[in-house]
Amino acid sequence: KRLREYGIKIGVLPTGKLNAITDVAGVQVGQVTLNKGTEVRTGVSAILPHAGNLFQEKVLAAVYVGNGFGKLAGSSQVQELGNLESPIILTNTLSVATAMNAVITHTLQQPGNEKVQSVNALVGETNDGGLNDIRGRHVTEKHVLEAIQKAKDGEVEEGNVGAGTGTICFGFKGGIGTSSRKLPPSLGGYTVGVLVQTNFGGVLQIAGAPVGEELERFSFRQQIMEKADGSCMIVVATDAPVDARNLERMAKRAMLGLGKTGGIASNGSGDYVISFSAHPGLRVPYESRERTQTVTLLRNDEMSPLFMATIEATEEAILNSLFKAETIVGKDKNKVEALPLEKTLDILKKHHVIKP
Amino acid sequence: KRLREYGIKIGVLPTGKLNAITDVAGVQVGQVTLNKGTEVRTGVSAILPHAGNLFQEKVLAAVYVGNGFGKLAGSSQVQELGNLESPIILTNTLSVATAMNAVITHTLQQPGNEKVQSVNALVGETNDGGLNDIRGRHVTEKHVLEAIQKAKDGEVEEGNVGAGTGTICFGFKGGIGTSSRKLPPSLGGYTVGVLVQTNFGGVLQIAGAPVGEELERFSFRQQIMEKADGSCMIVVATDAPVDARNLERMAKRAMLGLGKTGGIASNGSGDYVISFSAHPGLRVPYESRERTQTVTLLRNDEMSPLFMATIEATEEAILNSLFKAETIVGKDKNKVEALPLEKTLDILKKHHVIKP
Amino acid sequence: KRLREYGIKIGVLPTGKLNAITDVAGVQVGQVTLNKGTEVRTGVSAILPHAGNLFQEKVLAAVYVGNGFGKLAGSSQVQELGNLESPIILTNTLSVATAMNAVITHTLQQPGNEKVQSVNALVGETNDGGLNDIRGRHVTEKHVLEAIQKAKDGEVEEGNVGAGTGTICFGFKGGIGTSSRKLPPSLGGYTVGVLVQTNFGGVLQIAGAPVGEELERFSFRQQIMEKADGSCMIVVATDAPVDARNLERMAKRAMLGLGKTGGIASNGSGDYVISFSAHPGLRVPYESRERTQTVTLLRNDEMSPLFMATIEATEEAILNSLFKAETIVGKDKNKVEALPLEKTLDILKKHHVIKP
Amino acid sequence: KRLREYGIKIGVLPTGKLNAITDVAGVQVGQVTLNKGTEVRTGVSAILPHAGNLFQEKVLAAVYVGNGFGKLAGSSQVQELGNLESPIILTNTLSVATAMNAVITHTLQQPGNEKVQSVNALVGETNDGGLNDIRGRHVTEKHVLEAIQKAKDGEVEEGNVGAGTGTICFGFKGGIGTSSRKLPPSLGGYTVGVLVQTNFGGVLQIAGAPVGEELERFSFRQQIMEKADGSCMIVVATDAPVDARNLERMAKRAMLGLGKTGGIASNGSGDYVISFSAHPGLRVPYESRERTQTVTLLRNDEMSPLFMATIEATEEAILNSLFKAETIVGKDKNKVEALPLEKTLDILKKHHVIKP
Repeated sequence: KRLREYGIKIGVLPTGKLNAITDVAGVQVGQVTLNKGTEVRTGVSAILPHAGNLFQEKVLAAVYVGNGFGKLAGSSQVQELGNLESPIILTNTLSVATAMNAVITHTLQQPGNEKVQSVNALVGETNDGGLNDIRGRHVTEKHVLEAIQKAKDGEVEEGNVGAGTGTICFGFKGGIGTSSRKLPPSLGGYTVGVLVQTNFGGVLQIAGAPVGEELERFSFRQQIMEKADGSCMIVVATDAPVDARNLERMAKRAMLGLGKTGGIASNGSGDYVISFSAHPGLRVPYESRERTQTVTLLRNDEMSPLFMATIEATEEAILNSLFKAETIVGKDKNKVEALPLEKTLDILKKHHVIKP
Repeated sequence: KRLREYGIKIGVLPTGKLNAITDVAGVQVGQVTLNKGTEVRTGVSAILPHAGNLFQEKVLAAVYVGNGFGKLAGSSQVQELGNLESPIILTNTLSVATAMNAVITHTLQQPGNEKVQSVNALVGETNDGGLNDIRGRHVTEKHVLEAIQKAKDGEVEEGNVGAGTGTICFGFKGGIGTSSRKLPPSLGGYTVGVLVQTNFGGVLQIAGAPVGEELERFSFRQQIMEKADGSCMIVVATDAPVDARNLERMAKRAMLGLGKTGGIASNGSGDYVISFSAHPGLRVPYESRERTQTVTLLRNDEMSPLFMATIEATEEAILNSLFKAETIVGKDKNKVEALPLEKTLDILKKHHVIKP
Repeated sequence: KRLREYGIKIGVLPTGKLNAITDVAGVQVGQVTLNKGTEVRTGVSAILPHAGNLFQEKVLAAVYVGNGFGKLAGSSQVQELGNLESPIILTNTLSVATAMNAVITHTLQQPGNEKVQSVNALVGETNDGGLNDIRGRHVTEKHVLEAIQKAKDGEVEEGNVGAGTGTICFGFKGGIGTSSRKLPPSLGGYTVGVLVQTNFGGVLQIAGAPVGEELERFSFRQQIMEKADGSCMIVVATDAPVDARNLERMAKRAMLGLGKTGGIASNGSGDYVISFSAHPGLRVPYESRERTQTVTLLRNDEMSPLFMATIEATEEAILNSLFKAETIVGKDKNKVEALPLEKTLDILKKHHVIKP
Repeated sequence: KRLREYGIKIGVLPTGKLNAITDVAGVQVGQVTLNKGTEVRTGVSAILPHAGNLFQEKVLAAVYVGNGFGKLAGSSQVQELGNLESPIILTNTLSVATAMNAVITHTLQQPGNEKVQSVNALVGETNDGGLNDIRGRHVTEKHVLEAIQKAKDGEVEEGNVGAGTGTICFGFKGGIGTSSRKLPPSLGGYTVGVLVQTNFGGVLQIAGAPVGEELERFSFRQQIMEKADGSCMIVVATDAPVDARNLERMAKRAMLGLGKTGGIASNGSGDYVISFSAHPGLRVPYESRERTQTVTLLRNDEMSPLFMATIEATEEAILNSLFKAETIVGKDKNKVEALPLEKTLDILKKHHVIKP
C-alpha cells in the first residue's frame, strides 16, 4: 500500500487526484519489467510529457545535477536550449546507450520526422548491479520501445517495476515511486507531479521520524557509509506555465525533498532532476514560420508555492517507492528486504506520524 | 539554551567539543550587535578561516548558490580561483558595500599588504528590514572592522547577535546559529563546522517533528507563502584536506540541511553557502617562487561522511539560531516572538523527539 | 579617431547609426572622469538600460563569467532571476563598494521606491592601479551619482574617460570603447550594442592583422606573459526580444570577440559580460496584480545572427577603446603610450586591412 | 599539406615535435573511416589519454560546454568527479549510443575490470548528415572497438578520416585536425595538444585574413546564416600538472581559438571542449587503500601560458582540418569542395600571412 493509505501525510499541500505524476494533464508513463530467471532484475520506465510527436512539439524543460556521478544522457542540450524533444527514459546504468538507440529509432520512425537527422535522447539510470546481472546488459531496444508504446495516463505502477525492479534504497528494496501536489486556486491551482527511481542511501526518515536509526539498520556508522552510495533519478512535471529558467529552479528544490527522506547525495550517487512544463501553450514547434513565439509565463514571484509542491511531492514519491516495493531475491541469491512494515508503522506511531 | 540542552539530537554523527564552527582549528568568529534605540536592530558577524594574513595565505574555498536572490559579493572570484583571501562578513542587505569597503581597508592595512591593489571581499547578507531601519544603513566600516578585530576561537554567541540581530526565521525570531560534527577516526576524524544567519521561511520541522504545523502558525496556506521569503547565509568550515571542487560539493549539501528544517529556498530567498578548508597544509601563498604546490587531498570516495556531517551541522545550526534567539521589538514597534519554548517542547515530546 | 575612420572594417554586418551601445533604443551612458593631480587616473561609467525607474521596471538580463578573477557585484541575483534592477556601473577594483552604495542611494531615493528595502547593484571593475593611486580610493558616491545623472543617449565618449581613464590594454593605453551592429530586416532588423572597459593583455590583432607581434612589443614570450593580466568588462545591449537564457548565450559569444583582438582571458583577468534586452515589451514590473506575464520572445533558431553581431561589436568596441585612447602619465610618473598610430596603420596597410 | 607547410604560422608559441595532440606524452589516437558506396561517409576517432587501463587509472579531466546543442555523453560525471575513466570517442550524432555501448564493452572486458558495474563513456559527435546517410546508423560497436585498438602515438591522420569523414566547415570540407604548442622552459616547458572534429560555420579567417569574405562564399548574409550551424568537438590534452578546475579553464579558452577562425558558436552548434591532464603523477586509482592522494599541481598564477597555448593550438587544429580535407561526394550526390587552395593562398599572400 502507498504511504497515505497508512494515514501518513507529507507536508501541508493537497495531492492531485491520483497522487501521481500523471495528475499533470497529458503526462504518460509506460514501464517494462525484466524479472527473469535468477539473475535479471531490471527494466525500463518511460515518461512522456505529452502523447503527440515530442520532436515536432518540444516542451520547455530543465536538468539539475544534484550529484553528477551518473550517466544521464542528453542533459547539455536540454540545458542549452531549454527544451526536451524525446520521451524521458529511465533504466540501469549499463543500458543507457541501448535506451538512447531506442529513442532515436522511435523518433526517426514517427510520422513527420522522416527528414530528422538529430535526436537528443534524455536517458537516466541508476545502478541495479546488486540484484541484477547488470554486466549482462539485458535491456534491449525492444524493451525500451515497448515502454514508450505502453505509456498511458492514469495510475502509475510503483515499487519493483520498470527501472525500479532491481534498485535498493536506504538498505531496503527501493523502486519507482510517484506523488503529486495541487496548489489551491489562490496560489494558481497548478499541479506538480514527481516520479522517482530510488537507489540511494543515507539515514531513512519518514515524515521526519528517524526510522532508519530506530530499525538499527544504520546504527553503526561504518555501515551507514557503506550503504550511502547509489543514485536517484527524479522527474518533475508541472502544468504551470514556467520557462526553462524557473523549471531549473524547481528541479533544484527536488533535492530538498530527497534530503528530507534522509538522503545525503553521497559521492557515488547520480542524483539528477529533470523538470518540464506540460502546459500546452508553451510547446516549441520544431519549425516555425514565425521568428518569435508569444508565451504567457509565471512571474518569479509566484514560484514559491511550486517550489514547496516540488519538495513535498519528491519526498512522498521516494517514500512511496519504499512502501510499494517488495522483498526480492536476485543475482547471486542476493536478497533485499522490503521496508519492514510492522516495525515501521510502530515507529511512526511512536513518533506520532500516524495518529493513534 | 541550545538544542542539545533540551535533549534534542540531530542526526547520527557526534558533535565537536563546542558544537560550533570554531571546533575547526584556526577558525575565529567576531560579532558586533547594533541594538540601538527603537529602530536599529542589525549587526555584523565576521568569520576568519585563520588568524593570520588571509590575503598572503589564502584558503581553498567554494561558493554554492542555493537561490541567488541576494547580494553576496565576491563569489565569482572564489568560484574561479578556488580560494578565499579575506574574512567572511555577514551583515544586512543594504550594508554589503560598507562591509566590502571595511574588508578592503582591513586588507590594505595589514602588514605585508602594502602593495596590494586588489582585494576580493566576500560579504553576505540577509534582509532584516522587518525589524531594522535598513534604509538608514546604520552599519559603518568601523563596526565591521571591530567585528574582525574581535574575532576569536572558542564559543560562539548565537541568537540575536551580530548579523542575526534583526532576522526572522519560520515566522519566529531567527539569528546566528552554529553547530559542528566530528567524524569518527575510522572515517578520517575530520571536523565540519557550520555557522548560519537565518532569515527564511517554510514550514518549521525540528528533528523531523512538524512544529510549524502544530503551532498553527503555518496552517493557512496563504500565510505560508507570505512568510516564505527571506534568506539564509551558511558558512561551512572543515579541517579536512578538501580542494575547491569537493568544497563546492560540501556546500551543495548544506542546502539539504536547510531543507530538513522545513526551508524551501523560496523565490525571494538569498541562500548561499560558503565553504572553506582550514587545513594548514592547503594554504595558497599569494606569491611563490615555486611554479607548483604539493598538496595532500582527500579522495572523492571519502567525501560522503563529510557530506553527511555538513547536512547535520547545518540543520542543527539553523535550529540553534531559533532556540537561542529571543523575542524582540524593533522598527515601527514590530514585535517578533521567539520560538514558544513550552509549546515547542510539548510538541517535541509528543513526537518522541525528546524522550519522555 | 575611431577605427572606421581609418577605413578599417570588422566583420560582415553593418553598424548602427552611431556605432555605439546607444544605438539600442533607450540605452543611456554617463561618465565621470577623475584625472586629478599626478596620481589620480580613474573614473566611473554608468550604463542605463532605460531612462525610467529601473527598480520598478526591471529589464531581462544575464551575466556570463569569462574569467572570474574580478569583483563584479550583483551577478548572482541577475543569474537567478534573469533580470536587472539598477544602472550598470563600471569603475576601478577598489571602488566597487563605493559604487554599490551610490546605486543603493540612487535607487532608494527614486520616486516610487520609498519602501524599497533591497537593491541589487550591478557594479563591475578593472584594475587601474598601474596609472592610478587605486589604494587611495578616490571615487566617491557623488561621482557615481553624477555619472548616473549625466547618462544620456547619443554619442558615447571613448578612450581615457570614465572607468577607462587609467586602464591599459595589450600594453598600450586602453579605455572605454563602443560599437554596434544592426541586423538586416531579413534577419530581424535588431540592434546589438556593446560597451567595453579594456584593461587586459595578450597579442594584439586588429582585424586579424598581427599588430602586437609586428610592433615587437610582444615578441619576447616572457614579456607576453607578464603583460597578459588585467580584465575586460563587456556590456551587451540589444533591442531584440530575448529572454535571460538567450541573453546569457549572447554574453558568452562576446568572449569570442575579445579573443579575436588577441585577448587570452589570462588567469588574472576579470572578464565579465553583462547582457540585457532593452525591448520595452519585456520589462518586468516590480509588483504586479497579475500572476503571469505575456511576452513575445525570439525563438532559439533566430539567435545566430545576434551571436555574430555580438562577436563583431565586441571586437570593434575593444579596438575603438585603443584607437581613441591617448598617451597618459599617471601614478609614480608611469607613462603608458597610446597605440602608435603611424606604425599601426602601416602594418594594417601591409596586411591589406586598410586597402591601399 | 598542413598549414605550416605553406609557411602559415598561428600565434607566437612554438609547436611540439609533431604539431599534434600526440606530442603530449602517452596520448594515443585511433581512427576508423567509413567511406563506403555512395551514401556512407562517417567514422570514429578515439583519443586515449594513456595506453593503460583508464578505468583503473583515471585521468583528471574537465568538460566545457561552448554551446550545448549536441549529444555529448558522459559530461556530468566528468564535471562532478573531475576525472575521466574511458577513451574519448568522436563519431556522428546518431551513433553516440553505439559508441557508448562499445566503450562499455571495451571497459568491461579489460583485465582487472571483471567486477566493474559502472562505466562513464565520454562520446562526442558532430552531424555529418549532409554527406552521410546518418539515419542509416552505419557505425557499429565493432568500428568503435577497432578505433580504440588501433590507437597509437606518433602522427595523426587529418582531414576526411575517422569522425571527420563527412563533416563540413565554413562551407568547405572539414574533418579531423590537430596541433600542439610547447611552452619554453621559462614558462614551464609543458605541452598542450588539441584535436578537433570540425563541422561548423561562420566567416572563415585564416591567421586573421578574411578568407571567407574574399572567397565570396559568405558574402550574402542570408547564406552566412544558413551555413552557420553545425558543431565542433575539441579535445585538449596537456602534460602540465593541472587539476580539474584549471583544466576546465583551459577548455574554456579553446573556444577563443574557435572564434579566431571565424566560428560563432551558432545556435545549432554543439561545441564542446574536453580537456585532460596526461601527467602520470595525477592519475586517480579506481580503488586505493589511502584516504588521500598527494599531488603536485600548477598554481593558478602559472596558467596563462597554457591558456595561450590552448587558444593557438585550437585555432591551428581547426585550420589543419580544412587544409588536409579533400573534396568529397556523398549522400544524394552532395558534393562538398575542399578549401580552394590556389585562391586561398593568393588571399593569404595578399594579406601578408604568407610572406612574399
